Amino acid sequence: MTSPKSLAAKLRADESIVTAWASLAAPILGELLGRSGFPAVTFDMQHGQQDFGEVREGMSFLSLTDAHKIVRIPVGEMATASRALDIGAECVIAPMINSVEDAQAFAEAMKYPPVGKRSWGPHRAAMLKGQSLPDYLATANDETVALAMIETPEAIAALDDILDVPGIDGIFVGPSDMSLTLSNGAKLDPNGEKTIEVCAELAERTRAKGKIAGVFCMSPERVHESRKQGYRLMAYGFDVSLFMGAATAAIDACR
Amino acid sequence: MTSPKSLAAKLRADESIVTAWASLAAPILGELLGRSGFPAVTFDMQHGQQDFGEVREGMSFLSLTDAHKIVRIPVGEMATASRALDIGAECVIAPMINSVEDAQAFAEAMKYPPVGKRSWGPHRAAMLKGQSLPDYLATANDETVALAMIETPEAIAALDDILDVPGIDGIFVGPSDMSLTLSNGAKLDPNGEKTIEVCAELAERTRAKGKIAGVFCMSPERVHESRKQGYRLMAYGFDVSLFMGAATAAIDACR
Amino acid sequence: MTSPKSLAAKLRADESIVTAWASLAAPILGELLGRSGFPAVTFDMQHGQQDFGEVREGMSFLSLTDAHKIVRIPVGEMATASRALDIGAECVIAPMINSVEDAQAFAEAMKYPPVGKRSWGPHRAAMLKGQSLPDYLATANDETVALAMIETPEAIAALDDILDVPGIDGIFVGPSDMSLTLSNGAKLDPNGEKTIEVCAELAERTRAKGKIAGVFCMSPERVHESRKQGYRLMAYGFDVSLFMGAATAAIDACR
Amino acid sequence: MTSPKSLAAKLRADESIVTAWASLAAPILGELLGRSGFPAVTFDMQHGQQDFGEVREGMSFLSLTDAHKIVRIPVGEMATASRALDIGAECVIAPMINSVEDAQAFAEAMKYPPVGKRSWGPHRAAMLKGQSLPDYLATANDETVALAMIETPEAIAALDDILDVPGIDGIFVGPSDMSLTLSNGAKLDPNGEKTIEVCAELAERTRAKGKIAGVFCMSPERVHESRKQGYRLMAYGFDVSLFMGAATAAIDACR
Amino acid sequence: MTSPKSLAAKLRADESIVTAWASLAAPILGELLGRSGFPAVTFDMQHGQQDFGEVREGMSFLSLTDAHKIVRIPVGEMATASRALDIGAECVIAPMINSVEDAQAFAEAMKYPPVGKRSWGPHRAAMLKGQSLPDYLATANDETVALAMIETPEAIAALDDILDVPGIDGIFVGPSDMSLTLSNGAKLDPNGEKTIEVCAELAERTRAKGKIAGVFCMSPERVHESRKQGYRLMAYGFDVSLFMGAATAAIDACR
Amino acid sequence: MTSPKSLAAKLRADESIVTAWASLAAPILGELLGRSGFPAVTFDMQHGQQDFGEVREGMSFLSLTDAHKIVRIPVGEMATASRALDIGAECVIAPMINSVEDAQAFAEAMKYPPVGKRSWGPHRAAMLKGQSLPDYLATANDETVALAMIETPEAIAALDDILDVPGIDGIFVGPSDMSLTLSNGAKLDPNGEKTIEVCAELAERTRAKGKIAGVFCMSPERVHESRKQGYRLMAYGFDVSLFMGAATAAIDACR
Repeated sequence: MTSPKSLAAKLRADESIVTAWASLAAPILGELLGRSGFPAVTFDMQHGQQDFGEVREGMSFLSLTDAHKIVRIPVGEMATASRALDIGAECVIAPMINSVEDAQAFAEAMKYPPVGKRSWGPHRAAMLKGQSLPDYLATANDETVALAMIETPEAIAALDDILDVPGIDGIFVGPSDMSLTLSNGAKLDPNGEKTIEVCAELAERTRAKGKIAGVFCMSPERVHESRKQGYRLMAYGFDVSLFMGAATAAIDACR
Repeated sequence: MTSPKSLAAKLRADESIVTAWASLAAPILGELLGRSGFPAVTFDMQHGQQDFGEVREGMSFLSLTDAHKIVRIPVGEMATASRALDIGAECVIAPMINSVEDAQAFAEAMKYPPVGKRSWGPHRAAMLKGQSLPDYLATANDETVALAMIETPEAIAALDDILDVPGIDGIFVGPSDMSLTLSNGAKLDPNGEKTIEVCAELAERTRAKGKIAGVFCMSPERVHESRKQGYRLMAYGFDVSLFMGAATAAIDACR
Repeated sequence: MTSPKSLAAKLRADESIVTAWASLAAPILGELLGRSGFPAVTFDMQHGQQDFGEVREGMSFLSLTDAHKIVRIPVGEMATASRALDIGAECVIAPMINSVEDAQAFAEAMKYPPVGKRSWGPHRAAMLKGQSLPDYLATANDETVALAMIETPEAIAALDDILDVPGIDGIFVGPSDMSLTLSNGAKLDPNGEKTIEVCAELAERTRAKGKIAGVFCMSPERVHESRKQGYRLMAYGFDVSLFMGAATAAIDACR
Repeated sequence: MTSPKSLAAKLRADESIVTAWASLAAPILGELLGRSGFPAVTFDMQHGQQDFGEVREGMSFLSLTDAHKIVRIPVGEMATASRALDIGAECVIAPMINSVEDAQAFAEAMKYPPVGKRSWGPHRAAMLKGQSLPDYLATANDETVALAMIETPEAIAALDDILDVPGIDGIFVGPSDMSLTLSNGAKLDPNGEKTIEVCAELAERTRAKGKIAGVFCMSPERVHESRKQGYRLMAYGFDVSLFMGAATAAIDACR
Repeated sequence: MTSPKSLAAKLRADESIVTAWASLAAPILGELLGRSGFPAVTFDMQHGQQDFGEVREGMSFLSLTDAHKIVRIPVGEMATASRALDIGAECVIAPMINSVEDAQAFAEAMKYPPVGKRSWGPHRAAMLKGQSLPDYLATANDETVALAMIETPEAIAALDDILDVPGIDGIFVGPSDMSLTLSNGAKLDPNGEKTIEVCAELAERTRAKGKIAGVFCMSPERVHESRKQGYRLMAYGFDVSLFMGAATAAIDACR
Repeated sequence: MTSPKSLAAKLRADESIVTAWASLAAPILGELLGRSGFPAVTFDMQHGQQDFGEVREGMSFLSLTDAHKIVRIPVGEMATASRALDIGAECVIAPMINSVEDAQAFAEAMKYPPVGKRSWGPHRAAMLKGQSLPDYLATANDETVALAMIETPEAIAALDDILDVPGIDGIFVGPSDMSLTLSNGAKLDPNGEKTIEVCAELAERTRAKGKIAGVFCMSPERVHESRKQGYRLMAYGFDVSLFMGAATAAIDACR
C-alpha cells in the first residue's frame, strides 16, 4: 500500500526523497526497486524503453510497496501527463520546459480547475490510493506534483516566471542536457564545475519561491551534495546500470 | 461482422445508439460488450487504462460482433485520431475541443482531402470492413464520424462555430467535466440541474445545425432523458462499474 | 496485502470462504474481484482462457487486495501445481483426481519433503507474502492447500483412499463433470437431485476424515446449500457471466 | 550485428538502399525481412498497426541481422522521433512536413545541439550499436537521418526552404498522399503520370541541394525508375502484401 | 464467422481441405492466412514459436474469417488438447502417437463421455461458434476431430489398432519425422520414394477403416499427389517460408 | 552472434563456464546478462516467473550477444525440452531426474534418432545459429547438451545408471533440494558440509564416466570450489538477487 503520507506532503515538509529510475520495459523491476528500499520510483517514458502500457503495469506492481510513483513523460506530450496521473502517478516530470508557455501547458494538464484544465477520470488512481472519487477531487491538486525540467539556457533565464505559473510545484534539473545546452552541444559534463554551479543556483532560486527542487544525480555523492544545495527529490539508481553493474561484478568474482 | 449499415448512416438517420465504455486494458471485454447486446463500444484512451495496442486488439475482437467501434483519443493527440481510423474506428471522440482551431485540427486528422488532411493508409480498416481500398476512399469521409467533446464554457460559447467547421460531424458532451468547468472546479455534478440544462441546450443547438449530438450518461435514466433532449449517441455501461457492480452483488448474495 | 490469517488456517478453522472464478486472460479482473469483496479468487487454467503468464500477473494484481489466491491447473499438469505455488498461490485445485496414484502425484508436487517432493524455489511467493525464505519453508506444507477434484464415479469410489494420501488437504467437487460422468455423457445436470445428493455424500465423507470440502456452485442458492452440506470453499462468481450479465442488464435498461 | 557502415554513410555516398515496410504488430517479421535480404526495414507507426512497444521489440530482433533500422512516426509526434532514435533507429521519416516550421520541429527532435534540441539519453541505441556514450554523442548528428515527407502542394512549394533547415537530411515522398492532395481528394494515383513527374522534380531539387531523396514505391518497376530519377532510399515490400500475396499463391497452387 | 458446415462434416463427406501452417508467435498472421483463402489454419505448438496465449489470440482473429481452426499440441501434452478445444479448435493434431495407449490418452482428452474423459468447460468455443452450451455438448464429439500423428515404425505397425481406438477420428502423417525414424536418424527425406510409399499405404489403411487421413506436404505437388493417395487434410503453407520467400523475391526484383 | 564454438564443445573440452540465472518474466534481462560478460544465461522455467513466451523472447535478445543459451524446464515436462531446443536452447537442464526411466524420457526429448526420439522442426534454432537445416540435423545431437538434475538420494543411488543412458550428457546438481531431500525436509543447507561432500562425490563419479558436471552455486566462492571439484558448468548470478542487491546498496549509499 502506498505510504499514507503523500509524496507531495513529504516534499513540501522539506523531507528528502531519493527516487530510483526505471527505464526498461519490465514492470516487475519497478516493484523490486520499491522493495529494495527506494522511497520512490520514476518510470521514464522520455528516454526509457517503456511505453504507457508498461508504465501502467509497473505502477500497479509498485503499489505492492509503499514507494511513491513518479512518471517522466516524453517532450511536449502533455496528454500523457494527465494519463499518468489517471493511472496513479503522484508526480509527473515534464522534460524541456523552456518557457512560461511550456509551463502553462504542463500545469493545465496536471491540475483540475480552477488551477488548470485537467479532465476528470481518475478511477484507477483513486482505486490504487483507496480514495473515494470526491476525496480524490478534493485533494488532487495538492497531492499531485508537477515538476518542470530545467535543462537549457532559455529555461534558466525564464526560471522565475516558470515557477510563478500556477500549478507548477517545482523543477527537476537534468544535468546532462544542461551541460550539453550550456556548451552548445560541445560536451556532456553532468558533474562538471559549471554544471554544478548552475544546479546550486537553480535550487536556490526555486527554494526562494517556496517550490520543490529535484535533480538527476550520477552518483551517491551527487545525491548528498544536491541535498546540501537544497534539492529534495534526487534521482539515483538507474535500472540498467544497477543490473549490469551487479552482473559484471558477479561474473568478475567468478573468474 | 460489422453491421452492414454504418454507425454514421444510423446516426444521420436519427437512430438512437447506446455505446458501452471500455476502459480496461483487456481487449476481450470489448468483444463481450458487443456480444451482450450493446450496439456500439467506445474504447477510451483518454481516461481509460488502455493504450493503442490494446485498442487495436479490442477492435479486432469487437469485429467478431456487429457492434460499432468508437475510440476516444487523449487530449490533443490528433495523430491518434487518424491511427484509430486506420485500425477500424468508425467514430472518434476528441476531448476538450474548446475552439474553432481545436475543431479544425481534429477535422483535418479525421477527413481525407478536400475536407481535411488525413493521410492515406487504411489497410486494416478496409480489411475489417471488407471493403476494397478505392471503396474505402470513396466512402470514408461520410462513413467516419468526428465528434468534438464540448465540456467547458469556452466550448459552449464557440459551439456554433465549431459545428460549422467542415468535417465536424457533431458533438459529444462530457457532463462531469462540464460541471467541473462550469463551477470553476468547485464540484462534480454531472446529474445536476444546471448541467442537465446545459446538455439540453447543447443538443438543441447541435440539432439545429443538422449535426449529431452525443453524451456520456451516468445512468439508464439519463440515457432516456438524453434521448428526449435530442441526443442520439448515449454512452452508458462503464466496464469497471459493470464488473465490480456484478461482483459485489454476487458476493453479497452468498453471505 | 494478503490477509494475515492464511486461507489454510481459515478453512481448517471451519470458516466458510467464497471464491470468485477468473477465466479470462485479463489479469486486472482478478484484482477487481478482490476489491469487490470476494475473500478469494481462483484463476482457472483448465477451462479458462488464461495461461501461466496471465495467472502470474493476476496473482500480483490480486496481492493489492487481501483476497486469497487459488489456481486450478490443467488436467495432470503437476509441474504447474508447483509453479503456481512458487508465484504465490495459497491453494491449488487439481482436476480429475480419480485414483490414489493421481492424488499422490498431486501431493508430491504440492508439499515439500517429507510429505511430498516439491522442489525448492518459492522466491516470488515468499516476497508476496512478506516472508523470509526459512519462514516460508517452515510453514509452506501447512499453509498451502491441495484440493483434489472429485468428479467421476471412480473418484467417488476411491475417495476415502484419496483423502488418506498424505498431503491431500481436501477435495473440490465439480458438479457439471460429475453429472456428465454419472450419466455416462448423457446430460449436464449440475443442479440435479442426484448430483446434489452425491455432493452431500462427498462433503460428509470428507469432513469425516477431517479434511476440507470445496465445490463449484451455479448460483448463490447452491452456495448456501453447500455450506449447509459441510462445504467450506464455495466457488461462485464466474467472470464472464458476471460481466456479460451486467452488460446485458445495462443495455436492456437503456432500451 | 548492424552493418559497420551506417545507413547515413551509405546514403551520403550515393548508394541505393531498398527498405522493406513493416506495418503489423509482429516484431519477428522485422527480423525475417532483414534475414530475407532487405538492406533496411522501416517500422511504420503512422499507418501501421504497431505501437512503440512493438517497434522497440522489432528493432531488437532486427539487430540480429545487418539491416538498417528506420521508423516512420505518426503525424506531428516529434517526441516519438527522439524516442525512436533512443531505441536504435538510424533514420526517422516524419509524415506531412508541409512547412519550414514543421521541418524545424522535426530537426529539433532529431539532432543534438547545436543543430537541434534532442535531449540526451540514447543508452539502448548505443548498446545496440556497440558504441560508448561519448562516441554516440560525437557521431549521432551525422549518423542519424532525418527525412521529411513531402506529400502536399504546400510541401512542394516550400521544398527548397525545407531542405535548407539545418538538421533535415533529405526527403521521403509519399506518392499516394501526393496524388490525393494534388487532386484535392479526387483520386489515388501513385503511379500516375503527373505523380511520377512530380516525383522526378522532387528528386532533382533535393539532389541539387545535396540532400537525400527517398520514395515509397508500389512495385519493383517503380524502385528501378525512382533510382534513375535520383532517389536513393526506395521503400518496397509491404509486409501485409508480401504475406497475403504468398499465401494466396500457395493456396491457389493447391487447388 | 466460422463456416456453417464444420470441418468434421467436410472431412467426413470426403471433401479435401488444405490447411496453412502457422508457427510464428504473431496471432494476426493466422487471420491473414484465413483471409488469403486457406480453408483452414493450423496453429503449431509443437515446433512453432507460439505458446497457448498466442494460439488463443490467433483463434479469435481467425474467427473473423470462415477458415477452420486446427491446433497441433506438443508431444504428450494431452491437457493442452482439451484446452485447445475449449478455446475454439475444431481439430487437434497430436504428435508421436506410437501406440494404442498414446491414442487412448489422446482420445480421452478430446471426447466427452461416454467416448472419452474430456472435462466440461467450453464457454469460449461455444461463444465463437455461436452455439448454446447444450448444443455444444450434443455435437462436440462429432464436430471435433482428433488426428493422431503417425511418424514412426512403431506407429505404422500399430496403425490398425490406433484407428480402432474410440474417439480417434483419423491420422496425420509427418513425412519428415517418418523419414528420420524409418532411416533410424540417417536422413531427412520427406519427399523420398520410400516415404511417399509409406504415405500411400497409411492413407489406404486409414480409409479402409473409414477414418480421415491428413498429411504435411512440402509443396503443392505433394498436396495434389496426397489427395490422389486418399488424403483429405493436406497441410501446406508454412508461415515462415511464405513470408521469407515473398520477401526474398521482392528484394531480388529490386536489384 | 552466438560464439562459433558451441557450449557443448567448450564443456567437452573441459572449459569452465559460468551461467547467469534468469528467473524474471523480463526477456531484456537475459540480453543484459550476456552483455555484462556472462558466457551463458539459463532461463529458469521451473522456479522462475517466466513462461515459454518470455523464454522465447529472451533467447532472441540473448542472441544479440555471444552468450550461450540454456533453459531449465519444469519437472517432467519433456515436451518443453524439445520446444526449448527448437527455439534455440543449446542446453536443457531437467529437474528431478531420479531414475533411469526419468533420464530416458529426457534423453528421448533431447536427441534425434537413433539416440532419442526428438521430432523434427528446429527452424528457429537453425536460423539463430545461422545453420542450414541439414547442418543442424548433422550436428544437433552433439551440439545440444542434456543435463539431468541430481537432487535426491534416489538420484544419487541411480547416478551411474543415469549417466549411462544414451543421450544424457551430464548432470546438474541442485544443492538446495539436495540438502532438503537428504535431511528429509528438515533443513535447507546448500552450503553445508554434507551437501558439499555429496557435490564432490557427484562430480567425481560424473567425470569418471566422461560426462559433464554442473552445479548451482550460492556464491562466487562456491563457483571456485566447484570448479576445483570438477564441475565445469557453474550457475551463479540470480537476476532477482543481482538487481535487488544493487538497488539496496544504491539507496543505502544515498542515505
